[in-house]
Amino acid sequence: MVIAPPKIRFRDPQIEMAHGAGGKASRRLVEGLFAPLLMGDSTEPLGDAAHVNFNGIMLAMTADSFVVQPLQFRGGSIGDLAVNGTVNDLAVSGARAQALVVTYIIEAGLPSEILEREVRAMAKAAACAGVAIVGGDTKVVENGKADGMYITTAGIGVPIPGVSLSPASVRPGDCVLLSGPIGDHGITVLLARGDLEIEAELCSDTRSVLPMVEALAEAAAPGIRWMRDPTRGGVATSLNELARDCGLAILLAEEDIPVRDSVRGACELLGLDPLHIANEGQFLAVVAREYAGAALEALRRTPGGHEAAIIGRIEEQPAATVLGARPYGGTRVIDMLVGDPLPRIC
Amino acid sequence: MVIAPPKIRFRDPQIEMAHGAGGKASRRLVEGLFAPLLMGDSTEPLGDAAHVNFNGIMLAMTADSFVVQPLQFRGGSIGDLAVNGTVNDLAVSGARAQALVVTYIIEAGLPSEILEREVRAMAKAAACAGVAIVGGDTKVVENGKADGMYITTAGIGVPIPGVSLSPASVRPGDCVLLSGPIGDHGITVLLARGDLEIEAELCSDTRSVLPMVEALAEAAAPGIRWMRDPTRGGVATSLNELARDCGLAILLAEEDIPVRDSVRGACELLGLDPLHIANEGQFLAVVAREYAGAALEALRRTPGGHEAAIIGRIEEQPAATVLGARPYGGTRVIDMLVGDPLPRIC
Repeated sequence: MVIAPPKIRFRDPQIEMAHGAGGKASRRLVEGLFAPLLMGDSTEPLGDAAHVNFNGIMLAMTADSFVVQPLQFRGGSIGDLAVNGTVNDLAVSGARAQALVVTYIIEAGLPSEILEREVRAMAKAAACAGVAIVGGDTKVVENGKADGMYITTAGIGVPIPGVSLSPASVRPGDCVLLSGPIGDHGITVLLARGDLEIEAELCSDTRSVLPMVEALAEAAAPGIRWMRDPTRGGVATSLNELARDCGLAILLAEEDIPVRDSVRGACELLGLDPLHIANEGQFLAVVAREYAGAALEALRRTPGGHEAAIIGRIEEQPAATVLGARPYGGTRVIDMLVGDPLPRIC
Repeated sequence: MVIAPPKIRFRDPQIEMAHGAGGKASRRLVEGLFAPLLMGDSTEPLGDAAHVNFNGIMLAMTADSFVVQPLQFRGGSIGDLAVNGTVNDLAVSGARAQALVVTYIIEAGLPSEILEREVRAMAKAAACAGVAIVGGDTKVVENGKADGMYITTAGIGVPIPGVSLSPASVRPGDCVLLSGPIGDHGITVLLARGDLEIEAELCSDTRSVLPMVEALAEAAAPGIRWMRDPTRGGVATSLNELARDCGLAILLAEEDIPVRDSVRGACELLGLDPLHIANEGQFLAVVAREYAGAALEALRRTPGGHEAAIIGRIEEQPAATVLGARPYGGTRVIDMLVGDPLPRIC
């Protein structure tokens, strides 16, 4: 590696919450500062995981930090997210997680039983996902400095045979698949904070999407063009990144996007779009039209995938744009997340 | 992986700073909670990096979080530590770092120029160490949390040919080598906090030890039994872990351990033992006696290794103990670090 020439385009004077929200500000930071300095001149689109050649074999590698507040919420906790998030980043890059390393930054004064609870959650999630936790590190910071704990996981995965993904392979006519209802995680965490007077029977969707990705690969590997797990920034942000990277249009049939009534209701109350809400157990896939039927069938047959749907298709124009077709006719432009309406969601 | 049976021996009611200091409390937490829950029944000694078989090839994998305060100090900064620390963990496990992933947890309000400075420091350290940074993640937390930034790095390395390390391979008569003077990093960070009225011409030793490890391997690979970088907890803690893991005695010639006058002076003033102070650019090696001369020569020939020394030898008795022979005769028992006299040193 050579030290990158200084091509810094990041001009924001200081770091704000929005730079960590996964939307436009995050992208500005990553593309304007991190990528040019750390990854040299690479113009490769930034995926969920990097694929690297080690002594002749390709492996996928990824890392994520988790700072969710509160630590626990209906359906999951920071420990679940930390394992599933990394397993899922590998899965949607076309790899099966094999080994994880974990680091904890713990706030002094944290009751040991809370730590033990999260370590057990991680062990259970790792067992479910079939991944080994092979090492890690612990740091402790003073009381008041880390909201209980922050967890970072890094993972290595082996490629799923036959899967080759790239935004450049996406073609007009391809179908956009979604594995299940969106927004459950983000709204659940928001409700767990107790700031809202909303009651809802809602759980985080945190889970490994690997079984669904593997089922999809088995049924339709040659037709899979691109996958992404729509976490921070939601489906709208993931698809806008794809639209930009492939230069094509994505036309969504909004009435075909599965959203639970409680998520829709909370979003209406809060002035949020479910398409911007974080998910932790869903993924998007772009699949060639001739494979779309088999792909949807495979997802629906997989446990937890029965609500999978084809939610849109790729078109030539308008370039690099995501459009939503409304049930009552007409379309709207769907933009990336701007700002950070739901901070610290993962 | 199967979910580990509950063999939790960690009984401390809450997490304290000492649990992150690398000494006895850290070991209690790792061996009593993390290892039994996350790593199942493995009785393997916990090394700096795990060696894992991926599709038939062995790779080393490690991760560390960095929470040093202040972010910058003489000779280095959190960005340097985050790269060198992970490169060094891999090196002393017998592997050459090939790819890193990086995550940032940033405090809202951090001036962008400080972030840019640290990203540049990481790019430079990675280029020096010959490792590629291939991906990462950014989270932002509210002002008042995270002290500017925390950085986590995870790394993958390929084994250095001919090197096979295990505490179980250590034999009476083996020699203990040290790459250079100890305590520079810990005392430098302490002085950078400005709480002490000490002036000293001292710099952190943060650097990649890989060139020295590779020189050692070239000269003496079949004779290398064990290596470790004595970071948190210092040389005393690393050697106590070895003594416990191999069940033998380690007899140190204390006058042969290189310590700068300024480090010795600061330690005397503060009632600290240089053997407990963190290093970020040194490593310890146990080498079979017949290879010790060649090993020392190789270290001293390598840039930055001219102060390398043989500081002790392995003996049969007293079992699982580190002893220091004083210059004026007599020995003392050298224990692991207890408590956390220098918090957040890395």
